[in-house]
Amino acid sequence: MLNHIEKGECVRTPKVLSIQSHVVHGYVGNKAATFPLQYKGWDVDVLNTVQLSNHPGYGKFTGHKAKASDVYDILKKGLLGDLNMTYDAILTGYIPCTDTLKLLSQTLGDACKKDHRLKWIVDPVLGDNGKLYVSDKNVPVYKCILRENRLFMVTPNQFEMETLTGMGITSLESLRQGFIKFHNLYPLVERVVITSMEITISDDNTDYLVCACCDFVAKPDAVHYFKVPKLNAHFSGSGDLFTALLLDCLLHPTAKQPLDLSHTVSAVLSLVDDILLRTMDLTLSKGDFLTNKPSVINDLKLVNCLDLLAQPPGSHTTTRFRPTSIELFR
Amino acid sequence: MLNHIEKGECVRTPKVLSIQSHVVHGYVGNKAATFPLQYKGWDVDVLNTVQLSNHPGYGKFTGHKAKASDVYDILKKGLLGDLNMTYDAILTGYIPCTDTLKLLSQTLGDACKKDHRLKWIVDPVLGDNGKLYVSDKNVPVYKCILRENRLFMVTPNQFEMETLTGMGITSLESLRQGFIKFHNLYPLVERVVITSMEITISDDNTDYLVCACCDFVAKPDAVHYFKVPKLNAHFSGSGDLFTALLLDCLLHPTAKQPLDLSHTVSAVLSLVDDILLRTMDLTLSKGDFLTNKPSVINDLKLVNCLDLLAQPPGSHTTTRFRPTSIELFR
Repeated sequence: MLNHIEKGECVRTPKVLSIQSHVVHGYVGNKAATFPLQYKGWDVDVLNTVQLSNHPGYGKFTGHKAKASDVYDILKKGLLGDLNMTYDAILTGYIPCTDTLKLLSQTLGDACKKDHRLKWIVDPVLGDNGKLYVSDKNVPVYKCILRENRLFMVTPNQFEMETLTGMGITSLESLRQGFIKFHNLYPLVERVVITSMEITISDDNTDYLVCACCDFVAKPDAVHYFKVPKLNAHFSGSGDLFTALLLDCLLHPTAKQPLDLSHTVSAVLSLVDDILLRTMDLTLSKGDFLTNKPSVINDLKLVNCLDLLAQPPGSHTTTRFRPTSIELFR
Repeated sequence: MLNHIEKGECVRTPKVLSIQSHVVHGYVGNKAATFPLQYKGWDVDVLNTVQLSNHPGYGKFTGHKAKASDVYDILKKGLLGDLNMTYDAILTGYIPCTDTLKLLSQTLGDACKKDHRLKWIVDPVLGDNGKLYVSDKNVPVYKCILRENRLFMVTPNQFEMETLTGMGITSLESLRQGFIKFHNLYPLVERVVITSMEITISDDNTDYLVCACCDFVAKPDAVHYFKVPKLNAHFSGSGDLFTALLLDCLLHPTAKQPLDLSHTVSAVLSLVDDILLRTMDLTLSKGDFLTNKPSVINDLKLVNCLDLLAQPPGSHTTTRFRPTSIELFR
């Protein structure tokens, strides 16, 4: 897969435009997405909405937002204008400035309408753990983006799914209702993956996170969910990494057709889990492992995970997470 | 080399801070340096001095410079302050804003004085082919940086070497004089690599570029130079790639000690040449190869060169460029 030329294969190089945050130090946003995608053979155009010294999880950070007009000019005049770029995929993540979000989404929507092969993946970054970490003015903008554009995939976390649907998700039944409501509100969205949720499925064990997905195009009648054992640590950037790897597995020219979303989510969950375990191994001392208190791990150890990332897309060897399906309409 | 953990080896992850330009599309500046360094196992902190849609060689571009105070805050308050980062190496390249250059160089100089293991590599980006492409006010700032700091390596091109020494370089004799003058002006600079020159060495053949280096610490009496056959194309970013790979080969924890600068330059020239040839193969049509007119190749095909980059540092298999030495003082 990685040495097409050496092996005499001829796979074209796919192109993605990734619009996210930039941190000088560490691996969140574009820093979490770019290296794995490049390593997987993607030509990544990297548009940064902010430049920060590090992610805010450190407690302190310095940095600056790019001006809305500057980011817009780069996209509209530069990439889509003068360079006349065509992409296989667009990935949008952290865009904190409401004006930037409005300008970009209008332009990206137009680009998708003009080029039906272009797949837009939206990570509707609004907040986490019950709190917004962008302006509340971004919420209606995202609702508008989801309503008006044929989006290949949207990847909210639990809080973002709740915010976008206006309903709480606490159980499998409310999860089912949430997907139905989401689809009613945003019928043009083709796939949804809720990246991590804390919901109660059965009483015997609560040490897991739940990931759930629905492919409204191929399998509109079923939601698949996964119970992912919790690691005793808090990570930053794992969601950004997950979405980038999902993009690779679903949209790389070598991806198996037809797409099987739940199979792909399962493979990517396994890969990300391996990367998080490797990161824990390289970050924590023996003492850290012995304590019950969850460790805070600031930086993914992506450059130490080449062997894990080297698996061909979609065929991660140790796919440990089996999907369970629930019928959406019954 | 790439899978330390899998092989049970335990090599620490080296850290570099790279301060250069950022282009959304293409591979120059930090986009040319970051992926190869990460792939080689470096944890790269990426501080961007500008964000441009693409490099200016395209003819048109859009984008913006980061404010001097913003870049300074990220470095001084963020990375070196709150995060208390220690690096193995610092790589500085395109810093067009004179105020930014002044603020950064003061801070980086102080950091090097405080931590003697820290190696600063300066690519004194001023211009090329006889023309400045930054403000002429940056020239005295670079002269000051080179005079006042113990720099591990400086990597000027021909024009920059001429600008920094105030003398033309047109022959082997003026090259020799240039190195002597450079060392007299900037005795704290430990190594110089002139990345590409058009000078006449003998009359029979002019289809080569000359690269020259001197290690003023280990071999202060000799300059080594290399005749590198010209490719029939103009590339952007090849110098930035060269400097980043040189950094890896010289400063990676697995690099052989003692360092042999001319051997390392030879290996990196071969590797970059292979990457340029691969880039030509992937960019040009058969018709392009048949014409005599040099092709303009805008973007290095870095993500298609994993097999070439995978060689262990310093031991590139096809080291085609043999150094010739000239005595510096005779």
